[in-house]
Amino acid sequence: MVRRSKSLLISVIGGSNANGEYLDLAYQVGQELARRGAIVVCGGLAGIMKSVCKGAKEAGGTTIGILPGNDPGEANPYVDLPICTGIGYARNVIVVKSGRAVIAIDGAFGTLSEIGHALGDAIPVIGLRTWNISQDNKVARYIIPANDPVDAVEKAIAAARQRSSRKKRAK
Amino acid sequence: MVRRSKSLLISVIGGSNANGEYLDLAYQVGQELARRGAIVVCGGLAGIMKSVCKGAKEAGGTTIGILPGNDPGEANPYVDLPICTGIGYARNVIVVKSGRAVIAIDGAFGTLSEIGHALGDAIPVIGLRTWNISQDNKVARYIIPANDPVDAVEKAIAAARQRSSRKKRAK
Amino acid sequence: MVRRSKSLLISVIGGSNANGEYLDLAYQVGQELARRGAIVVCGGLAGIMKSVCKGAKEAGGTTIGILPGNDPGEANPYVDLPICTGIGYARNVIVVKSGRAVIAIDGAFGTLSEIGHALGDAIPVIGLRTWNISQDNKVARYIIPANDPVDAVEKAIAAARQRSSRKKRAK
Amino acid sequence: MVRRSKSLLISVIGGSNANGEYLDLAYQVGQELARRGAIVVCGGLAGIMKSVCKGAKEAGGTTIGILPGNDPGEANPYVDLPICTGIGYARNVIVVKSGRAVIAIDGAFGTLSEIGHALGDAIPVIGLRTWNISQDNKVARYIIPANDPVDAVEKAIAAARQRSSRKKRAK
Repeated sequence: MVRRSKSLLISVIGGSNANGEYLDLAYQVGQELARRGAIVVCGGLAGIMKSVCKGAKEAGGTTIGILPGNDPGEANPYVDLPICTGIGYARNVIVVKSGRAVIAIDGAFGTLSEIGHALGDAIPVIGLRTWNISQDNKVARYIIPANDPVDAVEKAIAAARQRSSRKKRAK
Repeated sequence: MVRRSKSLLISVIGGSNANGEYLDLAYQVGQELARRGAIVVCGGLAGIMKSVCKGAKEAGGTTIGILPGNDPGEANPYVDLPICTGIGYARNVIVVKSGRAVIAIDGAFGTLSEIGHALGDAIPVIGLRTWNISQDNKVARYIIPANDPVDAVEKAIAAARQRSSRKKRAK
Repeated sequence: MVRRSKSLLISVIGGSNANGEYLDLAYQVGQELARRGAIVVCGGLAGIMKSVCKGAKEAGGTTIGILPGNDPGEANPYVDLPICTGIGYARNVIVVKSGRAVIAIDGAFGTLSEIGHALGDAIPVIGLRTWNISQDNKVARYIIPANDPVDAVEKAIAAARQRSSRKKRAK
Repeated sequence: MVRRSKSLLISVIGGSNANGEYLDLAYQVGQELARRGAIVVCGGLAGIMKSVCKGAKEAGGTTIGILPGNDPGEANPYVDLPICTGIGYARNVIVVKSGRAVIAIDGAFGTLSEIGHALGDAIPVIGLRTWNISQDNKVARYIIPANDPVDAVEKAIAAARQRSSRKKRAK
């Protein structure tokens, strides 16, 4: 029996129009997540989302795509499990909430909204050449920076495990 | 590589407070779906949702729970893949849209809302002792009635395949 | 200063393709709501939604349209305040939750989903020639039937006031 | 008859825990919007949301609160029209989509998510001491900076009108 307690879902976010350099990073992130047994959650479409799914699949992993629309056919071909939300880009909230940690790679405004939702919900965000955010004259170090795909994946899995164990202790 | 084209997601809906007779039906539906290789999508909580997941898991299947809240821990223990939506009962829309067909068993008002969303989206609904709906003086036969769990699962899979092939022909 | 405590929001639900007889009922419901100072909340589109807004506006009332899309221009011309949700038909949940009571007139599957969401949330539903629902062999009288527009509006306002006062007592 | 074409909805976003200096800015933004006949849309809760509504009401304006929960009683006392979404912080999407322009004041992570959603949807965002965002080594000037409340309101109304007229020309 597949035990849920062993499923570790990690969300990967990033834009649908990323260039090749970022797509390579996403592909490697997908591979590294799959090698460690983590399940990839993403928005299910093109660009970063497609590359991370491709990487995960080619390393034997499992991928979930949280789609904005109603048609599973809009998912990229490396999505195993298309979740059709029909709620448009409000689905970004679900992409981040379903992961125990989030890895952000590059990214456009949708990614920025996802970073906001994740941080607001105290979900750890690991950044790989993504948005820098700061406010007024306050210094801000909200996003945990990663140097490369392996570093991002290791930090994400460590943060996800810490979050789960913190929760258990709190009970 | 797991091919998405082979994943058949079937949604099972029904209330969280069903009595034993209905829970048995849900358990059998879960088993029959798993034996035919279909993946169970449900709301992830108790009652019908828990029984269908238990049945599916004990027959070697895979289960997805689309949760109303933020915490994967609110899923019943037979959910493999908890999707945390954080959108409350508006998540009912996602439960039905993610299946290629829907099996409704018994059910309270949440199930009624799901039947409405499914039929409005032209997703086939198979009913196993669920709501009867009609309007004004018009006769209505919207929900496809099933006699027992095997009948419900066979009708759901047939309707899901017909829907997918109709779509392909339309392209 | 407009005091919120005096604003009474009543939701009116029904399909976008209703025929003339039902549209007349909706128009009269809009007029009767406006004459009693209630604000109309609806889905903002055509059919029943347009007629109820027209009735309300022509009796000097105020109308809110909870739209499925992003464009206020998709609202019918009698909507004063278009709320753009961008979440598609999941916005049905918001239509019913924003009213203190719901009047259902005729209606297709979207209306059925709204009835389910309202009843599940203990929001009173007054029916004017709308869906009949029942379950298994249990008799069900969930929707409060109304004979005509005046009766529907009076029952809706009474139910809304009772709901608000019950809440205050509970505090 | 209130004509919708004359209703100008402007969204104001910002955190529920802002300090006094920012609350004063929000109060003034509310007043300036009301004086120019714009309707305030906000998240309906405390902090910036409450101050902007108070300012608008005391200058004779109208306010809409898009609430995360089910209870209109959770709105601050200066909200005229509480919209109960029940979808939690996914309602942030609706707050920004319902305005023809957005004014961001200070703000925590929810505000950051709203800025992302607005910019992703090409809704103009005017910033009053809010988040700074940039990406990788690219220079970014996405948020239109404002010097003070009057400047913010004038820029928001100008951007909203430009957006509406651009749309009409496109038709």
